[in-house]
Amino acid sequence: MLNTVIIGASGYTGAELSKMVSRHPQLILSGLYVSANSLDAGKPLSDLHGQLKGIVDLPLLPLTDIKTTAAAADIVLLATAHEVSHDIATTFLDAGCQVFDLSGAFRVKADDFYQQYYGFEHQHSEWLDNAAYGLAEWNDDAIRQAQLIAVPGCYPTASQLALKPLVVADLLDRQQWPVINAVSGVSGAGRKATMTNSFCEVSLHAYGLFTHRHQPEISHHLNCDVIFTPHLGNFKRGILATITAKLASGVTADDVTAVLESAYLKTSDQHAVRLLGNKTAQLDDVVGSCFCDIGWQVQGEHIILTAAIDNLLKGAASQAMQCINIRNGFSQLTALV
Amino acid sequence: MLNTVIIGASGYTGAELSKMVSRHPQLILSGLYVSANSLDAGKPLSDLHGQLKGIVDLPLLPLTDIKTTAAAADIVLLATAHEVSHDIATTFLDAGCQVFDLSGAFRVKADDFYQQYYGFEHQHSEWLDNAAYGLAEWNDDAIRQAQLIAVPGCYPTASQLALKPLVVADLLDRQQWPVINAVSGVSGAGRKATMTNSFCEVSLHAYGLFTHRHQPEISHHLNCDVIFTPHLGNFKRGILATITAKLASGVTADDVTAVLESAYLKTSDQHAVRLLGNKTAQLDDVVGSCFCDIGWQVQGEHIILTAAIDNLLKGAASQAMQCINIRNGFSQLTALV
Amino acid sequence: MLNTVIIGASGYTGAELSKMVSRHPQLILSGLYVSANSLDAGKPLSDLHGQLKGIVDLPLLPLTDIKTTAAAADIVLLATAHEVSHDIATTFLDAGCQVFDLSGAFRVKADDFYQQYYGFEHQHSEWLDNAAYGLAEWNDDAIRQAQLIAVPGCYPTASQLALKPLVVADLLDRQQWPVINAVSGVSGAGRKATMTNSFCEVSLHAYGLFTHRHQPEISHHLNCDVIFTPHLGNFKRGILATITAKLASGVTADDVTAVLESAYLKTSDQHAVRLLGNKTAQLDDVVGSCFCDIGWQVQGEHIILTAAIDNLLKGAASQAMQCINIRNGFSQLTALV
Amino acid sequence: MLNTVIIGASGYTGAELSKMVSRHPQLILSGLYVSANSLDAGKPLSDLHGQLKGIVDLPLLPLTDIKTTAAAADIVLLATAHEVSHDIATTFLDAGCQVFDLSGAFRVKADDFYQQYYGFEHQHSEWLDNAAYGLAEWNDDAIRQAQLIAVPGCYPTASQLALKPLVVADLLDRQQWPVINAVSGVSGAGRKATMTNSFCEVSLHAYGLFTHRHQPEISHHLNCDVIFTPHLGNFKRGILATITAKLASGVTADDVTAVLESAYLKTSDQHAVRLLGNKTAQLDDVVGSCFCDIGWQVQGEHIILTAAIDNLLKGAASQAMQCINIRNGFSQLTALV
Repeated sequence: MLNTVIIGASGYTGAELSKMVSRHPQLILSGLYVSANSLDAGKPLSDLHGQLKGIVDLPLLPLTDIKTTAAAADIVLLATAHEVSHDIATTFLDAGCQVFDLSGAFRVKADDFYQQYYGFEHQHSEWLDNAAYGLAEWNDDAIRQAQLIAVPGCYPTASQLALKPLVVADLLDRQQWPVINAVSGVSGAGRKATMTNSFCEVSLHAYGLFTHRHQPEISHHLNCDVIFTPHLGNFKRGILATITAKLASGVTADDVTAVLESAYLKTSDQHAVRLLGNKTAQLDDVVGSCFCDIGWQVQGEHIILTAAIDNLLKGAASQAMQCINIRNGFSQLTALV
Repeated sequence: MLNTVIIGASGYTGAELSKMVSRHPQLILSGLYVSANSLDAGKPLSDLHGQLKGIVDLPLLPLTDIKTTAAAADIVLLATAHEVSHDIATTFLDAGCQVFDLSGAFRVKADDFYQQYYGFEHQHSEWLDNAAYGLAEWNDDAIRQAQLIAVPGCYPTASQLALKPLVVADLLDRQQWPVINAVSGVSGAGRKATMTNSFCEVSLHAYGLFTHRHQPEISHHLNCDVIFTPHLGNFKRGILATITAKLASGVTADDVTAVLESAYLKTSDQHAVRLLGNKTAQLDDVVGSCFCDIGWQVQGEHIILTAAIDNLLKGAASQAMQCINIRNGFSQLTALV
Repeated sequence: MLNTVIIGASGYTGAELSKMVSRHPQLILSGLYVSANSLDAGKPLSDLHGQLKGIVDLPLLPLTDIKTTAAAADIVLLATAHEVSHDIATTFLDAGCQVFDLSGAFRVKADDFYQQYYGFEHQHSEWLDNAAYGLAEWNDDAIRQAQLIAVPGCYPTASQLALKPLVVADLLDRQQWPVINAVSGVSGAGRKATMTNSFCEVSLHAYGLFTHRHQPEISHHLNCDVIFTPHLGNFKRGILATITAKLASGVTADDVTAVLESAYLKTSDQHAVRLLGNKTAQLDDVVGSCFCDIGWQVQGEHIILTAAIDNLLKGAASQAMQCINIRNGFSQLTALV
Repeated sequence: MLNTVIIGASGYTGAELSKMVSRHPQLILSGLYVSANSLDAGKPLSDLHGQLKGIVDLPLLPLTDIKTTAAAADIVLLATAHEVSHDIATTFLDAGCQVFDLSGAFRVKADDFYQQYYGFEHQHSEWLDNAAYGLAEWNDDAIRQAQLIAVPGCYPTASQLALKPLVVADLLDRQQWPVINAVSGVSGAGRKATMTNSFCEVSLHAYGLFTHRHQPEISHHLNCDVIFTPHLGNFKRGILATITAKLASGVTADDVTAVLESAYLKTSDQHAVRLLGNKTAQLDDVVGSCFCDIGWQVQGEHIILTAAIDNLLKGAASQAMQCINIRNGFSQLTALV
């Protein structure tokens, strides 16, 4: 049994993680932490998330002494802000913990990336170099050996799971950048009071045109330029990505199907991708589940792929849990289905 | 032409008022004001409410000198917080303006009411005594003669329009308090960033059990005890009230129909109530409109009434406009249909 | 291991049942059936309910030979229309199956009830007499011994779980009927194409005033007259009931709390009710879960209770599973949390 | 005063048209028609659309004798199915009526188009040749002179209003097809009971990949190949289109702004497009209004435009009214703002 702590447990992702850890047969949920000065410290997690009442009633503890917390933990889940993860991860790592970071702090090994897209200078380049990128279906070997796993976020997960088989097999025309349009539920913005998240202000729209930090993350890990346009939708959870791309000369629909099936038609235990063939992904089919649904159609030189995930699960918490399972030799979807 | 200013113009009600005043043939929208230190001062109203672009692009002005503002205004609409209305109304009144207050500051003439339910001591009892309660369908004589009109809010409007004909005609069993359950859209809480209004936190529920300030307002103006339970719904606009009451001995369904039709079956110009007979009120039929829909059914000694309004219109802005129209001798639904 | 078949598996409740049976350690999902002439026969269940892909891909079978189906089944779940359950239950019962009927066909043992509220004459009074009413928290002794369990539906479950402790302890003033207002998600109407369920036509409103068949079911099993007003809400799943009642003379808030805690403060394994004290139930806290949340407040002679459930789970499928667990000596929330 | 009749008045577009005609100072709403065998014949329109109660209570008449109806009408609005418009338009045209057809029956003058995309052979090629395409901001000269105006639908209106200035000015790289992703509210599918429109089945998803009939309509009228992917959204009204394109070599952001402003920065009376500059269009800003909001941003060789309309208004009814106003010399937004 592995002692597991969640740092930043008060948010939506933290709540999902706490549920999963609770029902995992090989993990013990040994501590829920919030920042030392949080007003939520001392409250049961179920006070903030009523659906957890009777399921996870553990109190939120103030993270006052990281070393002591680290000493008692085997596995640490960081559901914290990017800067916070950047600052505290190494203490847990130095104590020997496995660290699964759900922030962006260790995802991209590229000069100036953090300065440009996150507004801070990265101080831990050695850990950045050694972090495994936790796209579970693609990096299981690296995940199995790493001490630090940088779990990708919601938009990059949906986008990469759909595009990566095509890019790896070199089926796309590299002259024309794939266009990724994605719509996310409001929970993607986190649990906080802002005008943007205010119920009456939420109205379907695009944002972050050409400038969203997930665009370089997707391009970096795909090794392929893309145009990525995120949208805010009028729903709580889920992401739907619609991806339009031009195929390389001579590539057929059958070629596309072959590489997608080769990537994802394994036994269900080994991954969380469901292939829909020429059907399109439906948001509600994945909300509340750990799966990424992918559909596709080809006409002439063009392909359209649709991919849907629950942004808080496959886009955050359940993907972190897949990584824990891979890292520790458990069946990959343990505690997830 | 009457110069009309809106104080507190940046909120949802302010936006609706500005549209109505703009299209009113006898009114000039001569100023939109926010508090002197508001960060919104200087912005066009349509920057905050995109749907007004090209319709009301006037800038929001800081209310720095009330007397000067008052001197140039014939009509003042206060879409301000209760305390603010309480504090500034008299300056406008002293300058001779007609004041239509959409806050609760002048609605209830009862000792201790403001201390108990609004948390401040009322300083202007003479104006409180002279204010007309702006329930347009019932108080037109008083409205026509008053300088200060206290426009009732959303829950009290729906509740009273349904119950008042029955109470006035003494059709209810006074031993058993009518039970009013009402569900309001989130816009009723105003335009601001709070956890309660946060998109992901909104979840249908009851609040303010036994303690909501609209309960004594309803009871006071109906002259009838009631049990009022407000609910927050997962929608932006509208209120649906379902009212269950016991009829006085011997009262029949026909008696009920007779008093409701007597109250509201006038020519459409004279009021904004639509009677549905034994159909039930539907929220979406009134959202975006100035109407209150009322349906009812009787079985044995019991009656159930349903009443629906748009909380920002008949529950605020359009009712204020009805009051302006009544006060100034215009056709009652001018600028509203 | 018990062979379990679901009749009427294509609907929303059938889909939920199939998921639960699949993950139940002591049950085998041995057959999913639809009516013999259904166009869905032959399709995998996951074709109709995409979220089940990879989880329940069994085909829907036409129910052509009930006796053969019965012979191979230990447990039968009827998620069928009332008339269908009425007609086919006995064949399964005669074959010795345990039958859990989610329709209304065996819920109320009262003369003329089926003629008046369901429009058919009941032909199986002996089974009606012997059926246990599957309100899991209250009838476990009867459920444990019955061969036929009539699982209560959504509105009656929420209403009775809140009111029954008070009625049993005789805390209510019987002269004044409790007023139950409840709002249900659209899934309560089943999976079918109707104008009423059409996305653009759904608009919060009350329906079935004084005439809904759940009113007599609630009154019968509570042994207490009630006024029940159902509403259709603009959401897919969940029910929120708000109940207003008058207390018997001398009853205090502490008395109320005592009887509710006595009824439901057991170890969590024994039931699916969560007490919220003076907080109010929130719809989203129970959607997707097997729990009924109950809150309450007392003022003077009046009490307001709020109760929330997922209409498809505690209001249908998970309550049926609780009954299966009780009947077969499994831990009560097996496969549910 | 012009006698105006609406054929197919019972649907969502018909309801909007009836409201507009009612409040138009130069039009008389002289008849609302449904098909001869419609079950709705005889009912007041407000029975089907409760929000019209007290506003349009005219009865729906069965269209039994088209010639007689035509003889009494100056203006005919066809809110009918494509085939029906195709079949009945000529009778109204022969009688000398102005016909504004909101269906697709006369929009595209291209061989085989109707056979391929609408499934019928077009029988009225002379009228097809003479019909004006009612994209109000672009075809006012043609509209002014035509007897038959084919009003474009929802997706083509949003898409063309955004792209047409760029195509006309030849600012796009023609080698790379613009990618149009659009999300529509459910009302776009019309007022009918289908599983697809059923409240619980609606789930954000793409449909009609590569095959939607609006793709060739957009390409034809833009004279530019496009990839168009429609989506169904979880809301009642509105369309948001996000368009990604590659600019021709050397084209700058200033060039783009110049052509958009040249197209649409006129006095507000002349059109219904609002330019947002580098802001993005927000769905709720246009729902309930006649406007199309357009925003855009350029980075390097790429441009992203966002366009939002109310699918029932600028995408149907209000655009038809703009056409009526243009055709008859009225101010273009009469009855619309």
